[in-house]
Amino acid sequence: MKFTAEILCVGTEILLGNIVNTNATELSRGLAEVGVGLYHHTVVGDNPQRLKEALEIAFSRNNLVITTGGLGPTYDDLTKETIAAYFGRKLVRDEESERRIRAFFDRWKRPMMENSRAMPENNLKQADMPEGCIILTNHNGTAPGCIIEGENGKVAIMLPGPPREMAPMFREQVMPWLQQRSGQVLRSHNVHFFGIGESALEEQLREKMETMENPTLAPYAKDGEVMLRVTAAAPTPEECEDMLAPVVNRLLEHFPGLIYGVDVGDLQTAAIKALQEKGLTAATAESCTGGLIGKRITEVPGSSEVYGFGVVTYANEAKMKLLGVKEETLKQFGAVSEQTAAEMAAGARALSGADIAISVTGIAGPGGGSTEKPVGLVYIGVDSPWHSEVKKLNLNRGYAQQREHIRWVAASHALDLLRRTAQMR
Amino acid sequence: MKFTAEILCVGTEILLGNIVNTNATELSRGLAEVGVGLYHHTVVGDNPQRLKEALEIAFSRNNLVITTGGLGPTYDDLTKETIAAYFGRKLVRDEESERRIRAFFDRWKRPMMENSRAMPENNLKQADMPEGCIILTNHNGTAPGCIIEGENGKVAIMLPGPPREMAPMFREQVMPWLQQRSGQVLRSHNVHFFGIGESALEEQLREKMETMENPTLAPYAKDGEVMLRVTAAAPTPEECEDMLAPVVNRLLEHFPGLIYGVDVGDLQTAAIKALQEKGLTAATAESCTGGLIGKRITEVPGSSEVYGFGVVTYANEAKMKLLGVKEETLKQFGAVSEQTAAEMAAGARALSGADIAISVTGIAGPGGGSTEKPVGLVYIGVDSPWHSEVKKLNLNRGYAQQREHIRWVAASHALDLLRRTAQMR
Repeated sequence: MKFTAEILCVGTEILLGNIVNTNATELSRGLAEVGVGLYHHTVVGDNPQRLKEALEIAFSRNNLVITTGGLGPTYDDLTKETIAAYFGRKLVRDEESERRIRAFFDRWKRPMMENSRAMPENNLKQADMPEGCIILTNHNGTAPGCIIEGENGKVAIMLPGPPREMAPMFREQVMPWLQQRSGQVLRSHNVHFFGIGESALEEQLREKMETMENPTLAPYAKDGEVMLRVTAAAPTPEECEDMLAPVVNRLLEHFPGLIYGVDVGDLQTAAIKALQEKGLTAATAESCTGGLIGKRITEVPGSSEVYGFGVVTYANEAKMKLLGVKEETLKQFGAVSEQTAAEMAAGARALSGADIAISVTGIAGPGGGSTEKPVGLVYIGVDSPWHSEVKKLNLNRGYAQQREHIRWVAASHALDLLRRTAQMR
Repeated sequence: MKFTAEILCVGTEILLGNIVNTNATELSRGLAEVGVGLYHHTVVGDNPQRLKEALEIAFSRNNLVITTGGLGPTYDDLTKETIAAYFGRKLVRDEESERRIRAFFDRWKRPMMENSRAMPENNLKQADMPEGCIILTNHNGTAPGCIIEGENGKVAIMLPGPPREMAPMFREQVMPWLQQRSGQVLRSHNVHFFGIGESALEEQLREKMETMENPTLAPYAKDGEVMLRVTAAAPTPEECEDMLAPVVNRLLEHFPGLIYGVDVGDLQTAAIKALQEKGLTAATAESCTGGLIGKRITEVPGSSEVYGFGVVTYANEAKMKLLGVKEETLKQFGAVSEQTAAEMAAGARALSGADIAISVTGIAGPGGGSTEKPVGLVYIGVDSPWHSEVKKLNLNRGYAQQREHIRWVAASHALDLLRRTAQMR
């Protein structure tokens, strides 16, 4: 069956602006990956009449409706009731779901909560499922989801509202179901670029991206990076991989130095991985990033093996006292200079005994800029026995409120330089 | 006129999951603030037929439709054309908009871009506006927005898609227009809570929140904090303030110690403000937060006046070498202990010469936990001549992937303790 889908999110808190509708984004990406056409998002509040009307509109223009929210235990959670009524189905208690809900409360509530209490009985409402549906197990909460296939050829898929319950249920249970319906499996690889913009990448790949049908190429740009997702569809995973390998390899050949990893997640993970592979340790000396590089490195579980040591030398005095930056250097060249960045990196390496030290000093704004040293001017330094370097960056994008952008991209450059330096070893 | 609104976002990139629809969230919040009822969000792609149908559905159930996106210069930007057709209006060139668009290109494109070139003529399409509309000036980009009031009592407000163009246009031009229509102005104060959960706060305020009509109370929970927005509507700003003051004061009396500021933005800004007011300086010593506290402090422009000095001592060796934590302390009590947190704070203060030093050591997970010291156990230390303290926290919420949550909330507690300590002086 060829599906065209609508995403129908249920929740007054979305309409009040209390939460961002990331569920719609997550579902949209997943549907694109499995090749299901998606033409509408709709949000309605916890109101059965408006939900019923929205459902009828959705099914008048699409044959697959995926809902999020309204599966909870309270009186205003009415998605299942409304959709079951649309399909003319009764709700019946599902025993396996009831068992899971009871077990969930036993497991988490008792040890965690000091003000522990018995499970409120209204939670079992969550185990009442439309007759004849496929039940989707909730591994991260209590409300199961379900798939209903109507006699009219319409399909509704109901998912819980909390993103950490919804997303795994969708990825692990719904996407395979949709794939199975199409008679194919899909496999993807994520190719991570740093140092090239989305439009430059698109320009170089436009023809390929438009003419390639299988595998497909889809770029996702965020925070100064681009991720290119390469997806193949075939009857088996092995055939997918056989189709993906040459495309990924051509990208690696075509963009030498601009790809920091495949399926690696992010720059900090790539840097940690490179350090681990070479058995190296790293230290950081941060001025304008103020701890952001350390924060990103220590996001990676296991980073303590390779990183133990960082300083935030926001003040000149700290640069001198902790890192041994010379007073003359600061006077002659200033805190934001190639020389200071080099002395910070060398000082951090000496202080920590790490194999590689990276440093950042720059002007993140909004104040502190001058004609000579404008907002966005950043120096990134690296020091190691086999390679030392200072890079000068201009990260100004020409509009207000770019402080966090400048800091983020400066940290990204430092992490990329750390990875490159480790890989030189 | 009493409005009920629908938000209609136009953009294929939203349906592909390439961008999160934060515009809908921003608009939802703003409409709640000005008291306009909102019952539907809809998203369609850059497809004129589906946009036309969605517009008709929207106006069949609401009398105000706010669109975002589709105002750009390219052939698939068709929002204005579609909406003008709905109202039976022609598009006419607006000279002031044309002048602004030309000036925008002159100002930004030439100095910023190395590959500078003349403005593509298709940009002037953005100055073609529906006859008789109110034009909304774009201070952050090229596409103006507009308000059309139809003879049928329906109103359409078109806004550009990029959030940094859309949001200020909405706040500065559309919200006042909506307020004026209601014959009232609105004023809000944001009361920031830390150390009390949303549900506990709601429980204490439920009756008030439900019965209060003017001013209203609306809670927003995020990242372990709650912000309560108090909003009053009255004919003049002064009357609003007169209505707000007693409510805010009652909250301050009712929740002593749980409110860290009014209209202050966030914990780091509150901490910096307290330091500035008392003429004090601060230093940080971070283990499990890995630089996050420094990063958050240095987000605040001007933080360099009060903060110059931080260390990330992820490794025990760094704790000893930089902060003078005793080897016996680490051996006897462990790196995650009250004693280590206290020595870290004292060491950071001695090393930096700052008035106040804060320290964090804990187990963020997913690994590293034990029965005795589980994931989520965090110690926060503070050291100053007038107050020293170590707080023990259990930040485990009982589910997977909570590392970033634990680190964030640990940093929040440290920032709150820093503010409190400064205010004790």
